[in-house]
This record gives sequence, structure tokens and C-alpha cells, in this order.
Amino acid sequence: MRVALIYHTPEPERAVAMSARLCYSPVGAEQLAEKMSDEQVRNLIKKIVDMGHSSTLEHASFTFAVEGVSRVLTHQLVRHRIASYSQQSQRYVSEHDFEYILPPTVAANAVAKEKFEALMDNIRATYDELVGLGVHKEDARYCLANATETKIVVTMNARALLNFFSLRCCTRAQWEIRKMAELMLAEVRKAAPLLFEKAGPTCVTSGYCNEGELTCGRLEKMKK
Amino acid sequence: MRVALIYHTPEPERAVAMSARLCYSPVGAEQLAEKMSDEQVRNLIKKIVDMGHSSTLEHASFTFAVEGVSRVLTHQLVRHRIASYSQQSQRYVSEHDFEYILPPTVAANAVAKEKFEALMDNIRATYDELVGLGVHKEDARYCLANATETKIVVTMNARALLNFFSLRCCTRAQWEIRKMAELMLAEVRKAAPLLFEKAGPTCVTSGYCNEGELTCGRLEKMKK
Amino acid sequence: MRVALIYHTPEPERAVAMSARLCYSPVGAEQLAEKMSDEQVRNLIKKIVDMGHSSTLEHASFTFAVEGVSRVLTHQLVRHRIASYSQQSQRYVSEHDFEYILPPTVAANAVAKEKFEALMDNIRATYDELVGLGVHKEDARYCLANATETKIVVTMNARALLNFFSLRCCTRAQWEIRKMAELMLAEVRKAAPLLFEKAGPTCVTSGYCNEGELTCGRLEKMKK
Amino acid sequence: MRVALIYHTPEPERAVAMSARLCYSPVGAEQLAEKMSDEQVRNLIKKIVDMGHSSTLEHASFTFAVEGVSRVLTHQLVRHRIASYSQQSQRYVSEHDFEYILPPTVAANAVAKEKFEALMDNIRATYDELVGLGVHKEDARYCLANATETKIVVTMNARALLNFFSLRCCTRAQWEIRKMAELMLAEVRKAAPLLFEKAGPTCVTSGYCNEGELTCGRLEKMKK
Repeated sequence: MRVALIYHTPEPERAVAMSARLCYSPVGAEQLAEKMSDEQVRNLIKKIVDMGHSSTLEHASFTFAVEGVSRVLTHQLVRHRIASYSQQSQRYVSEHDFEYILPPTVAANAVAKEKFEALMDNIRATYDELVGLGVHKEDARYCLANATETKIVVTMNARALLNFFSLRCCTRAQWEIRKMAELMLAEVRKAAPLLFEKAGPTCVTSGYCNEGELTCGRLEKMKK
Repeated sequence: MRVALIYHTPEPERAVAMSARLCYSPVGAEQLAEKMSDEQVRNLIKKIVDMGHSSTLEHASFTFAVEGVSRVLTHQLVRHRIASYSQQSQRYVSEHDFEYILPPTVAANAVAKEKFEALMDNIRATYDELVGLGVHKEDARYCLANATETKIVVTMNARALLNFFSLRCCTRAQWEIRKMAELMLAEVRKAAPLLFEKAGPTCVTSGYCNEGELTCGRLEKMKK
Repeated sequence: MRVALIYHTPEPERAVAMSARLCYSPVGAEQLAEKMSDEQVRNLIKKIVDMGHSSTLEHASFTFAVEGVSRVLTHQLVRHRIASYSQQSQRYVSEHDFEYILPPTVAANAVAKEKFEALMDNIRATYDELVGLGVHKEDARYCLANATETKIVVTMNARALLNFFSLRCCTRAQWEIRKMAELMLAEVRKAAPLLFEKAGPTCVTSGYCNEGELTCGRLEKMKK
Repeated sequence: MRVALIYHTPEPERAVAMSARLCYSPVGAEQLAEKMSDEQVRNLIKKIVDMGHSSTLEHASFTFAVEGVSRVLTHQLVRHRIASYSQQSQRYVSEHDFEYILPPTVAANAVAKEKFEALMDNIRATYDELVGLGVHKEDARYCLANATETKIVVTMNARALLNFFSLRCCTRAQWEIRKMAELMLAEVRKAAPLLFEKAGPTCVTSGYCNEGELTCGRLEKMKK
């Protein structure tokens, strides 16, 4: 899996702080953006994140290039609707040479791994045969597995990202999307350390857990 | 494939007409909803649809139960973000007995069909073996095909539906989602005939085509 | 102020429960909608609300007719973006006979009230003069006050409503929109009592407060 | 009125072109972003805009600082829901020194102008008196006019902007928001000339007009 932050709003923390300041100030945004000191920006960002004045976080936008993930992951990912996606198309791009994601629990079991890999070989052979018989890519793809590797560009603003991290960095989240969320978080922390300093699952950020009986127990341990 | 309209805003056309009328009237919405005659509703709906005063269409909401569709379809479907979805989970529901969608172009070719069906048998066997080896459903599903049958509940408002139909009833749309769009359109036409009378691809509704060189030629023929 | 729930998804709790059930069930949505007992629906709704499986709440939609509110209120209201609005237009509807909202703190002070009312008379006279001089309604409205009465149709789904109530039923919310939120909550509780049983500000629903130093102190008192 | 583009996605056209290319390419996004020549970017952007492959346009985001506009304008503006806003608050910022927007049709008529200005003086006096009597800013603001100057930060992506321009650069749009839309368009054309080369009302961009009987006649003239 490879996650790269390829574009983002320049000075994301200044953009957010200036927008927040505008709400409470007689001075205009442009002037605020220029005149706020780095320390003022830092202090305001902390306050915004703590108090959840989250609408101002939307002015900072982040674009990621993601590769080496499965369609299991992307089918979950694109359910996050406050975001923008461009995904490699199985309708137009040949999957003759497809790679695939092997779940760690399968990889850890030699028999399971062998079965899984043999099936992937069978799928590849069938895909090629279908195409050879004149079936278009858009229909041949019906035989491809959920595990098939895909590539996707994802843009989210900082508010949507904090929500995404709260859900997908949770130990209860599915392992593959959690891994991606953690890589994304590591990337945005380089670009906007204060904005994302406290990002993560709700047990860490807000001291509560919504998972009911399915809780991982982390919150319990933290309380001790 | 089975598409059923299971819930919708009562009197969807009256709801829309009343909202549109409110914008231009000194009288309140509740009073308008009660007092508008059926003919006034009809005339206003026609005007709204023709002039594209589309925000008022959002007050009418429609919920569909969809079964017998593939994950190829749902991965496309959930890219429509102004909508609500609840989908059968491969993480929690066993796919031991999965059914699958056979693309018509594969079904039409005896050799292709045989290969495809043999592969589905192999996938089923592998899935069961993985589960038998202690792999959880959430990881065993990586071996399942795009063709695997799924079930989904979809809610869209009338404005989002008109946009959905304009894109997905187009002959250039992928065949499976087009079939679903056509069934959805047939359903909503029973509940709100005037709202959806002119729904469909842009060639039919608005006399233009955005498909460039890939056009199906329908618009050309219509112009003759 | 008048708030009426004029339309909503029929059987809103059944619609939500069925959608939630579908995610974890091999059976289809239509069948679930028919076969779930009232008690099953009730139990599932409680679980959904407690565990925050909130996406399923989006399948239930509610439409309100609101009258006797100010443009102070609607300018705040329409900032809630996961919602649909149709508002009486000052561009097209004459404000010759406008009514206005008198804030309670102004009404409670005889001098303030007199000044305020005198100003409203002056505004009315000026509006009429401008129109008399040939200024179009769309420009004459620039002289109208924030207090001017307006009417609006609002549609939100149950998830958006719960979020709206958590923010706007808070004692820190502006008094007018809080009053409207409370009336809306009373209305939806009649239509879907379980869905909205625990709706309200976050101190009541979830035991936390985001208002920082500005807290009203309710949470503190509740903890004693 | 002052409109400044204060932040935007770096290389907005490259960001969009790379995302579009990814959909049809076996190569990953990061590599595409690096390797596409300027000419490839240009050619692809033209194709995207012409064919309406608009989802890729969402990866480019633009943030504006807007000052010297009325609350008539912002109440319309914030109805565009696929956008982010931070607005100067009348609840927290004193309006003792408020400025106001004088509509040109009022300014053009000496009598109307005098009446309008006298009213603004009266409003200012009343606002100050209310505050002097102990009425909080959040209630005193009820007496302020729609014309009162406000400041707002607006973030929209390129797709939302094209939609915004199609509606608000139309001669039928209200004059103040049209002026703002035109200034925004001039700004983004500097940052992304190809993306916005053809932006504007639908008569110009797509050769149709939805205004019915209310059309300005521009399309008719263009056809001659």
C-alpha cells in the first residue's frame, strides 16, 4: 500500500485560523491572513480543534494518491460522501496483469495462502479467456476478485478527514482501510501538525466509545 | 434484479408544488399544501420540471429496496453522493450460498459461460475452505468476485433521481446500472407521474449529448 | 412562530430498522420491511440510536412548514447544508405588509421596545416610498430589517435532524433558532418517538459539552 | 466590493488532469502528476471541460476572501451547499460602525437615495440605543438592515464553481451576487485559465437558457 499527499491548500493552518478569526473580528479575511503571527495561528488552531468549531476546518483541503489497495477497501472508502474520488476504471483499463491484496490472516496460514493464490491464478486465466473470446473488459471484470488491486485519488477537507480518522483509525475498523487511514494521518500531520495532532479514534480524541459490546477495550484500559 | 419502491414522501407532487409556490406567495406553506387544487399542482409541477427550479424537487424523497445486483453495480451506485445507502455486509453475512450476476455477453457465449460458471464454483469452494481454516468472513470475502449478488436500500430525493436518470439511463451507461435505473424510473413514475414524465438521458430530456466521439448516435437520429 | 410537520416518510422507524437489519441479514429489504414485528423494530431503533449506526437514519425524511420567524433565523438555518429549503422570496413577494420578530429582551424593556417599533414603522414607510419611486422589490428589500418575518419549508432526514437538535437545542444556541428546534423536536417525536426520544443537546444525549468557557453549566449540574 | 482569491490547490489544472488520467491508465496518480507534460495537461483539461467529466474537477479547491457585500448577498450565497463558509458574526462583532450596500437603482434616484440614507442613520442610532439600554448585540442586530455590510470566506471546488458561475453570471441573477460571481471568475481565471476559460451562464457555455419567459434574450441574439 502506498499513500502520498500530493496536493494541499498552502498554509492549511493559517487558512483555517484566518477563517475562524474572521467570524469574531471587524477586520477582513485577507488582512487577517497576512497579519496573524505564527503564534496566533497556533493558539487559535488549538482552540478550534478543542472546541469543535469545525466548519472553519473545511477551508483546508488535502489530495492523496493511493495505490496498492483492494476494491474491498475502495467500496468502503467511497461511502464517505463529503469527499472527491477518481478511481482507476475496470471498464477501460485491462486487468490482464492485475495484482491483488492478500489479507494478513490468509498469508499467515500456508494452506489458506496456497488456496487463495491458486484461485487468483484461475481468475487471471479466466479473465484472459473471456477477453480472448471477445467479451469486453467491462463484462470480463465481473469475474475479478474483491482483492484486485486498484488506484484512487482522494480529496477531503480537514473536517471530513478528522471524521474519517475517528471512524477508520478505530481498532474495530476493517484492517485494510485502517492501515490506509493511519498512513493518511501520518501524511497530513507533516503538512498541518496542529490540525491533526489529536486526530484518531474517539476513545483517544474524546474519551468515548460507540462500539457497545464490540468495543476493543482500549477505552477501559486508558481509564485505569 | 428486483427493484421495489418501498417508501416515499406522501403526495410527492403536492409537496414539491407547495414548496415552489411558497417562494412566490405571501401565504404560508401549510395553507398552500391544503388549498392548492390538483390542477394547480399539475400545472406547477410541469413548470418546475421545464424551467429547472430543481431545489424544490428535493422535498420529495424515495426509498428503494434493490436485490439481485452485483458489486460491480453497487460500487458505481454509491459514487452518487447525494443519496443514502444501507448495504448487505460481506463482513457480517456469510457468502457460503452466494448467488452471482452473469453478464449477458458472457451468457450468450457457451464457452465463456462455462468458464465463468466453473470459476464461480471454484470461488465458492475456496471461500468455504478459507472459512473452514478459521479465516474470518471479513477476510475470506477478498476472494469473492465482483459478480457476487448483493442487496441494498437506496434513498434519493427527486432532484437527485432526475440527475441519476440523466446519467444512468443513457445507452452509454454500464448495462447493469442502466437496467436498475430504468426499473427505478418505472417505479417512481407510478408514484409521481408528472415529476418523472420527462426523466431520462439528456438527449431525450434536453436535446444534448455529452458523450463526444463515444455518442450512441441517438440524438443524431432524433434530429432527423 | 409556527412549526408544522407537513410530510414525512411513512413508518419512519420501520424504514430505518429495516435498512439497518439488511446490513446484517441474508434476507432482502422488502421482506424485512414486511416481516419485522413492532417489537423488533423498537428494539433495533434503540440499538441504532445508542450505538450511533447513524447512516441508516437517513432513510427517514421529514418536511416542516415554518412561519413567523426572522431572517436572522433563516440565515443561520440554511447554513445546515444536509437539508433542503424553499423560502419566501423578498425579490418576488412584496413586503409592504411585513410583520417582524421582536426579540424578548427588547420586548421586556419599554424604551427599547418603543424605539424598535418606531424604527420598524420608519422602515415600512421607506420601503413603500422606494417602491413608489419605481425601485424594484429586489432592491427595495435592502432597507428591510433582519427582524422581518419570513416563511420557509425545510426537509431534513433523521440523521441531520439529530445533529441539528444537538447544536440548536443547546442553551448556548441563539434563542430564536432554539425555539424553532424545540418545536421541530416536539413534532417529530409524535411521528417517530423512539428515533427522537434521546434527541437534544450533547450534554443530555452524550454527557459532554463543547462550549468550553462559554458552557451554561448544565452538564456540571447534571453530574451532581 | 472586494473579492480576493487567497488560497487554492497548487497547480489546479495538473491536479485535475492527473486525476482524470488515472481513471483510464494502468499507471498510478503520483507518477502521472510528475510525468505529464504541460501540453498533455492542457489537452486533457479541454477534453474534461468539453465532455463534462466533472467529478475530476473537484480535486481543485479555491478559497476567497469577500468584503463589502450585503447580507442580501450572503443569504443567497450560503444556499449553495457544496461549499464552505466562515462569515463575520453579528452576534459577536459590534455593528456600531456598520457600512452598507446602496443598490445602484437607489443611488441613481436622488430622492430614493436620501430616504435610504436617512433610514440607515436611524437604524444606526436605534442599534446604539438598544445596546446602550443593555440589549445584547445578538438581539440588537434584529434592527439591522439587509443592506448591512458583511465579510465572508468562501471555499468551493472547481466543479461547484462552474455550477455557481452558470447560475450567478446569468443576467437574470440578482445584480450584487452576479457582480461577485464575475469578480470570482476573473480571479480563478488567473489561477486556472483553461479550467475556467468557458465558464459563465448556460447560454454562453452550453447554448441553452432555462429562464423561460423571463429570458434576457441573449441566447436569441447569439443565434443570429
